[in-house]
Amino acid sequence: MSILVVGSVAFDSVETPFGKADNVLGGSATYFSAAASYFSEVKLVAVVGEDFPDEHIDFLKDKGVDVTGLQRMQGKTFHWEGRYDYDLNEAHTLATHLNVFEKFQPDIPAAYRKSSYVFLANIDPDIQWNVLEQVERPKFIACDTMNFWIEGKPDALKRLLSKVDLFVLNEGEAREFAKEPNLVKAAKKIISYGPKTIIIKRGEYGALMFNGGSIFSAPAYPLESIFDPTGAGDSFAGGLMGYLANTDDASEANIRQAIIFGSVMASFNVEDFSLNRMRTLTLKEIRERYRQFKQLTHFEDI
Amino acid sequence: MSILVVGSVAFDSVETPFGKADNVLGGSATYFSAAASYFSEVKLVAVVGEDFPDEHIDFLKDKGVDVTGLQRMQGKTFHWEGRYDYDLNEAHTLATHLNVFEKFQPDIPAAYRKSSYVFLANIDPDIQWNVLEQVERPKFIACDTMNFWIEGKPDALKRLLSKVDLFVLNEGEAREFAKEPNLVKAAKKIISYGPKTIIIKRGEYGALMFNGGSIFSAPAYPLESIFDPTGAGDSFAGGLMGYLANTDDASEANIRQAIIFGSVMASFNVEDFSLNRMRTLTLKEIRERYRQFKQLTHFEDI
Repeated sequence: MSILVVGSVAFDSVETPFGKADNVLGGSATYFSAAASYFSEVKLVAVVGEDFPDEHIDFLKDKGVDVTGLQRMQGKTFHWEGRYDYDLNEAHTLATHLNVFEKFQPDIPAAYRKSSYVFLANIDPDIQWNVLEQVERPKFIACDTMNFWIEGKPDALKRLLSKVDLFVLNEGEAREFAKEPNLVKAAKKIISYGPKTIIIKRGEYGALMFNGGSIFSAPAYPLESIFDPTGAGDSFAGGLMGYLANTDDASEANIRQAIIFGSVMASFNVEDFSLNRMRTLTLKEIRERYRQFKQLTHFEDI
Repeated sequence: MSILVVGSVAFDSVETPFGKADNVLGGSATYFSAAASYFSEVKLVAVVGEDFPDEHIDFLKDKGVDVTGLQRMQGKTFHWEGRYDYDLNEAHTLATHLNVFEKFQPDIPAAYRKSSYVFLANIDPDIQWNVLEQVERPKFIACDTMNFWIEGKPDALKRLLSKVDLFVLNEGEAREFAKEPNLVKAAKKIISYGPKTIIIKRGEYGALMFNGGSIFSAPAYPLESIFDPTGAGDSFAGGLMGYLANTDDASEANIRQAIIFGSVMASFNVEDFSLNRMRTLTLKEIRERYRQFKQLTHFEDI
């Protein structure tokens, strides 16, 4: 099964305690597409400016990503500048130049409209809604968001969630959206808005999935060197959706496995700046780390 | 196998967003003993003042805890006052009245000196060392500490760790002690001081165990109502050491199970103020929650 992803393709300038990277490839849809490409076909919808080099597009093509839906507009590509201190869970935004992304109106190519799996990366919930109006009965819809939309467009987000199967957000966003400090209660409240499953990302602490009465706690992989957390959430979503689309099985047990594949992809991604780790990463390494996650969490029953 | 525990028995006055409890039973050795008592014999060494009521001692006796080593001194019992805000991971100390605890010099009763399992709760590392000098060749020694000793007596703590099998500390303490922000590197450094195993507690995010080249990630149980986090760490240590002493098996696989029993005890303890939850808690409930931890973390292998 193929996945349609709509989100940003961008340049990032990032500083961490371990180094600096200027004007490197970034963007939510980029990380998502590259990670998902290890598991299934990906169809990308995004916008870049005239300054976007072909080599980045070639990188995505080499990963097998369908870039028919990547529009090129007059102007500059979206550029994010950020810094991380030793607490790598928190990004400090230094500047956001939306550039061509400000006028982004996704136009879903005809060949993409029958996609069975859809991922709406973090953009304006009204635009996410608009994407859903262009596609034909997907089997499974997932979306991400951020505090900016939770604060600015909570009603649009709730409307969107009524159509969504899986909602991915981080811990602070979940508490803010539900106005509830207890995470279990917050998750229940958000599930009442529509999504059958929600996944709460907790950075270096892993993720919690809520699905009906069931809760799954996934660890993060304890890494000795984390170079750049940028894109961890989108790589996570890419691995997760890639595996779901590959297996075409949205059962609770399969979502658990998909979450581990998502965690594997996120753990590799943070080992280098930009998408560099995914330039050399192999499926064999992915499967090996999946097994390491199993060892990491295993204990005998009583 | 029986466990010797040396630590504090105290009064706590605690305020959380969910209520208030004044002058209730507290103390590291109290929480530890009550939790461990579900699994094995516990021999307690601590000190209380003249104001300490018999009902609290009777509670421990009813749990089967040997209180021969509980000294009563002239003066008042150690009294801690603290507050938790919505971030229940962080205790704000309002007042610490050490009282009789200030002059605590543990005197290990003759009948306790052959204990196979020893737990040194958070006290001055020189006093912890002094306890070890009084006991005869224990099979397994574990200890806890706090930032106060890490900052004030790092060398005494390192000397102690050379004799210790298992060191339990929290995340911030591990980073501070090792002067290393990366937790995996911090753990390796601390292991180089002597302990074969270290467990890093991460509050609502669970715990990480490092043992040789192996890492185990244990989740915390996602609770809908957490009333009072006080004593979570000591209940965790109690369940952990209780299970290890009960099974008399310090293999890596068994420590993993012990960590889950510790997590189970901590998860029950935070459901009510003071040790109230342990007044009614049954072994059946403990085993049921252990199985819930299994469900919480289970995913299929590939």
